[in-house]
Amino acid sequence: MTPLPTVQTVIDALTANRHTALPEPTVDQLLIGDPGTPVTGIVTTFMPTLSVVQQARSLGANLVIGHEGLFFSHHERSEESPEGEIERMKRQQLEASDVAVFRLHDSIHRYCPDGITEGLVAKLGWSGYVREYRAESCLLDIPSASLREIATEIKTRLGLPYITISGHPEAVFSRVGLLAGYRGGGTLTIPLLESKEADLIVYGEGPEWETPEYVREAMRFGRHCGLIALGHAASEEPGMERLAEALSVLFPHIPVHYLQEEPSIRIL
Amino acid sequence: MTPLPTVQTVIDALTANRHTALPEPTVDQLLIGDPGTPVTGIVTTFMPTLSVVQQARSLGANLVIGHEGLFFSHHERSEESPEGEIERMKRQQLEASDVAVFRLHDSIHRYCPDGITEGLVAKLGWSGYVREYRAESCLLDIPSASLREIATEIKTRLGLPYITISGHPEAVFSRVGLLAGYRGGGTLTIPLLESKEADLIVYGEGPEWETPEYVREAMRFGRHCGLIALGHAASEEPGMERLAEALSVLFPHIPVHYLQEEPSIRIL
Repeated sequence: MTPLPTVQTVIDALTANRHTALPEPTVDQLLIGDPGTPVTGIVTTFMPTLSVVQQARSLGANLVIGHEGLFFSHHERSEESPEGEIERMKRQQLEASDVAVFRLHDSIHRYCPDGITEGLVAKLGWSGYVREYRAESCLLDIPSASLREIATEIKTRLGLPYITISGHPEAVFSRVGLLAGYRGGGTLTIPLLESKEADLIVYGEGPEWETPEYVREAMRFGRHCGLIALGHAASEEPGMERLAEALSVLFPHIPVHYLQEEPSIRIL
Repeated sequence: MTPLPTVQTVIDALTANRHTALPEPTVDQLLIGDPGTPVTGIVTTFMPTLSVVQQARSLGANLVIGHEGLFFSHHERSEESPEGEIERMKRQQLEASDVAVFRLHDSIHRYCPDGITEGLVAKLGWSGYVREYRAESCLLDIPSASLREIATEIKTRLGLPYITISGHPEAVFSRVGLLAGYRGGGTLTIPLLESKEADLIVYGEGPEWETPEYVREAMRFGRHCGLIALGHAASEEPGMERLAEALSVLFPHIPVHYLQEEPSIRIL
């Protein structure tokens, strides 16, 4: 019988594939658990809620690979800040759960191409349309369609209850700049539009009055452009789903699952 | 006949009312125009688009007071960065328009109470329910109602096409923590919920996986809480609308208007 890999073995496999250096400090770390623990099963997820960890345990998995952190912030709380009540209760239940939690954020964004972006491209059915992968974006030439048609197709592909757009719904696009996660700021998107490398930006999340405002003003100057915002989770979940498939190839002797939370936000 | 105030006189009146020091550097500055120009009319607005400036001119106003900047970013472009094509065209048309543009952001947030927050409270019909104004939030005790009812009432009051919520739509709330603009991050909202000073956060804009994630996890631990996100513009426009009323009292001899853009984002 094949011996079970340890938590550290899985972490090493997940972080070996980087093509550029990690930021200092990186948020990628073992948040809960012991690196020497033999892994009985793996769950990947975007948001490691307590419920996801409990579901992992009931599936017999004792390692959760989450893309985001446990405590409602990109960076871990500093030592000086007091621990909140909800954070303390969640941490205590996690520590008692015998499930390790590793955060895989910076490393997977530094796969070549970015593992999160590549997962989103695949889920959108756009893998055949890639013009170029860059560090923080992907340029694509998709079949020409209206903003409304493209957004509606994306909603279906990603199973979204709603999607937000800026620009004219009937304007037709084919040159897409895709940016997963919180990469929707003008610093990243506007150069793609200004250079005409993309007419349509599709991003996860970004500040409300940067890219949407640029699109509005640029359209009034006759520039053909548009924007589709997917939501942060919606744009990064497919990358973590795809990671589960890759892990099941790397570790064929242990079960690997992908778990996804309900959306945390709804429209009224 | 009363002489017309200069642009600088109006700026001085707008910035005299601060109760705390401005950040260094402040974004509040005369972006277009000459401080010595006599002011024939004033327009206040949240987002000084070219269209708003052109409407101001056709109303005979030659000073626009905008809350946000002209070029799709909170901070002005640094001298080293090249000017984009849309920015250049907008700047050239603004410079040719004979309308001055002043940005009033940091100062109005430092009125006591915050002029943007106070305008939002008034527009929501909540002025009688204020428990306490703080630097970055307002605590209120509103009549008890469900999250759905409160959100629906807010939609009507602010004329919003949609509103986003986190939490159970039928949960009943009365203790509100209100944060206008981009103050929806967990650093500002979570302490209000942890301290039980508020059960329901109402904010303009914030990162998707901070406050909404906290609300989800806290509810699962039995904590009564919820969230309503208005949108950045929707949360700050009322403050700029209210400023127009204040300016028409300060400068009764010149016309003062409030102009508002259409939403830059829509839901599909």
